[in-house]
Amino acid sequence: MSLFSAMSVKREDVLKDENLIKNIEEIAKDAALLHGVLMRTKETPNSPEVVSYAPFTLFPTPVPKALFYQALAVQTHFNRLVDRVSQNAAFLEETLASTIKVDSFTARLFNIYKQVQQENHPQSIVVGLNRSDYMLDHSPDGGTSLKQIEINTIAASFGGLASRTADVHRHILKVANLPEECKHVVDNNPAAGLARGLAKAWELYGSERDGHEVAIVYFRNGYMPQNYTSEQSWEARLMMERSLAVKCPDISTHLAGTKKVQQELARPGVLERFFPDEPETVAQIQATFAGLYTLDMGEEGDKTVAMALANPDQYVLKPQREGGGNNIYGNEICQVLENLKNSSERTAYILMDKIQPVPVQNYLLRPGAPLKLSSCLSEVGAFGAYVRFLFF
Amino acid sequence: MSLFSAMSVKREDVLKDENLIKNIEEIAKDAALLHGVLMRTKETPNSPEVVSYAPFTLFPTPVPKALFYQALAVQTHFNRLVDRVSQNAAFLEETLASTIKVDSFTARLFNIYKQVQQENHPQSIVVGLNRSDYMLDHSPDGGTSLKQIEINTIAASFGGLASRTADVHRHILKVANLPEECKHVVDNNPAAGLARGLAKAWELYGSERDGHEVAIVYFRNGYMPQNYTSEQSWEARLMMERSLAVKCPDISTHLAGTKKVQQELARPGVLERFFPDEPETVAQIQATFAGLYTLDMGEEGDKTVAMALANPDQYVLKPQREGGGNNIYGNEICQVLENLKNSSERTAYILMDKIQPVPVQNYLLRPGAPLKLSSCLSEVGAFGAYVRFLFF
Repeated sequence: MSLFSAMSVKREDVLKDENLIKNIEEIAKDAALLHGVLMRTKETPNSPEVVSYAPFTLFPTPVPKALFYQALAVQTHFNRLVDRVSQNAAFLEETLASTIKVDSFTARLFNIYKQVQQENHPQSIVVGLNRSDYMLDHSPDGGTSLKQIEINTIAASFGGLASRTADVHRHILKVANLPEECKHVVDNNPAAGLARGLAKAWELYGSERDGHEVAIVYFRNGYMPQNYTSEQSWEARLMMERSLAVKCPDISTHLAGTKKVQQELARPGVLERFFPDEPETVAQIQATFAGLYTLDMGEEGDKTVAMALANPDQYVLKPQREGGGNNIYGNEICQVLENLKNSSERTAYILMDKIQPVPVQNYLLRPGAPLKLSSCLSEVGAFGAYVRFLFF
Repeated sequence: MSLFSAMSVKREDVLKDENLIKNIEEIAKDAALLHGVLMRTKETPNSPEVVSYAPFTLFPTPVPKALFYQALAVQTHFNRLVDRVSQNAAFLEETLASTIKVDSFTARLFNIYKQVQQENHPQSIVVGLNRSDYMLDHSPDGGTSLKQIEINTIAASFGGLASRTADVHRHILKVANLPEECKHVVDNNPAAGLARGLAKAWELYGSERDGHEVAIVYFRNGYMPQNYTSEQSWEARLMMERSLAVKCPDISTHLAGTKKVQQELARPGVLERFFPDEPETVAQIQATFAGLYTLDMGEEGDKTVAMALANPDQYVLKPQREGGGNNIYGNEICQVLENLKNSSERTAYILMDKIQPVPVQNYLLRPGAPLKLSSCLSEVGAFGAYVRFLFF
């Protein structure tokens, strides 16, 4: 039952109707709170007593059906790819060699990786919970394709929030008198799959011992330098990697998710090494890659620098390290590369084709911020959960 | 999957296990927040941005199955009783005559009632959403019976919260390793019935006019003197009662829920006047009444005073007005009655048999308050929703 009119309307009309939007705003916030789209407050992040709603868009973002199912279909290939990469020591070592020279954080992770490898701790179970993020790339000829932005192999979040957002959007669309759109909101429950992955690993671990034995270590953080506040943090990470506990992820799967690995996988011929007898798998993964270009020292890297300086607007310059938020665009690319182009420090970055998404008009709801019509660039993320179990 | 042990335990053991309770506390708060058992915060009651959990007990309170179904079964009789009382002008006038002499708030409500009656506004639809509250009375012989505390005919709340609490308790019981208890938590969705009542009234009202016509006035407050902050509040109440809108409740249904009416209905022979041909209905309602005794001026009231002074611990002295919280017990009953026994002011109160519930040990969760094992006296409430529709 709609609040305001008996006739159904169009989204663009709703977006322009300021009074209607103002009315929907409070209903939307209440719906988010009631459906569990929650986060702790900035003021008291450690209090169990109060919560706010997690930032969300007032309306859902449309994704073409074919691309949505493509993201789901290719996800199992990505699960297998990440797992194979994580078990290929030579590949990881070779790929990350240049990164660890300039990125001390990745270097420390890599040292832990090497140490546990040498100590040969038996790791019979690994659980992977990852999220592959895409943008919809609009080519000048009018076509739309799925382009991977990154794959997160550690602390891939929002599975819980996403599971509860569909009902919030359905409620908002009903109130906004957009029943047709409401029908197109798909059910979404990644939390169930992630939980099944963890439960399966716990079951396989199968200890009957009661008390304080840890079956699974789930990393909610540990992917940014600031997560390691002291030497003790590093010692804790090493201790966990050495333990019998199932890691989600183990250090090799963590490293398999670095941007440098992602870039290496995009190079011609590399995917084929991981799927030698599966050209179809290779093609499906490859189809989601935007061009990635090395900045390693040498001829190929020099070519990348020249390409970026010539057309900076077509590229993104990305730090190799995880965590996001520090991408470099446009003229700033030229500034950074002019400075670093003859230094090995340039290898801390990779260059990537800039994806050309079409902005969608929407309202962003964020605690404490006034509602404002915004041009939004969205990503669509596909979750993957898998458990590797080796018999000894 | 239990957090702490593979073997199922008993609730009394869980209640004593301080470490376990401490662990469950945070899980319980998160579960309440995630399932929508929410309220605004004390600090920012008008902010749409933050919420806290509504106070709740860590574990559900057991209610004997037979009494639970008795409360549901008798509820339809109470719906009909309230509705018949609300339409019996002579009964309301006679019953409330002594109350309005001493209670200026009820007197003002009654004046509005008289005024709209005289003006004869056609009210074809009335929607009633009420909640009948009971305690479990344990008699010395070991029997347990349902005794009505009060019936709320205006702003009967907690239907929404109650609809979402069952899942919270199920989750807590699972985590506390009490799977058998978990199975006994019944589904509970009063919100759906209340919403159906409002929707039905809206449908019957049936206006095709778009825009600002009000179909239903739902009173969230208006039952306490402090809800009427100025003369304008009273004018607004009168305006609403005079309007064509469906009232939930109308002023006569509001008055039908006063404690004085409740007391009058408990007197011998009164229920029979409302259900002359339904001795079974009368018996079922009567069975839930604790003894209620008048303090009106005269012989009967004098007898009540003497009875209360002789055994104050067996009674509760209650103000006639709605809102609760000011009941008088024990020696204080003697103090109040010694003062008022020869004054007509005593008629602002009624005397009631004190119900003897058995306390249940439980933990109360309340934002900002430390968790503490408490002896809890609980009420069980049955919701009723009905729509009266008259053809003219």
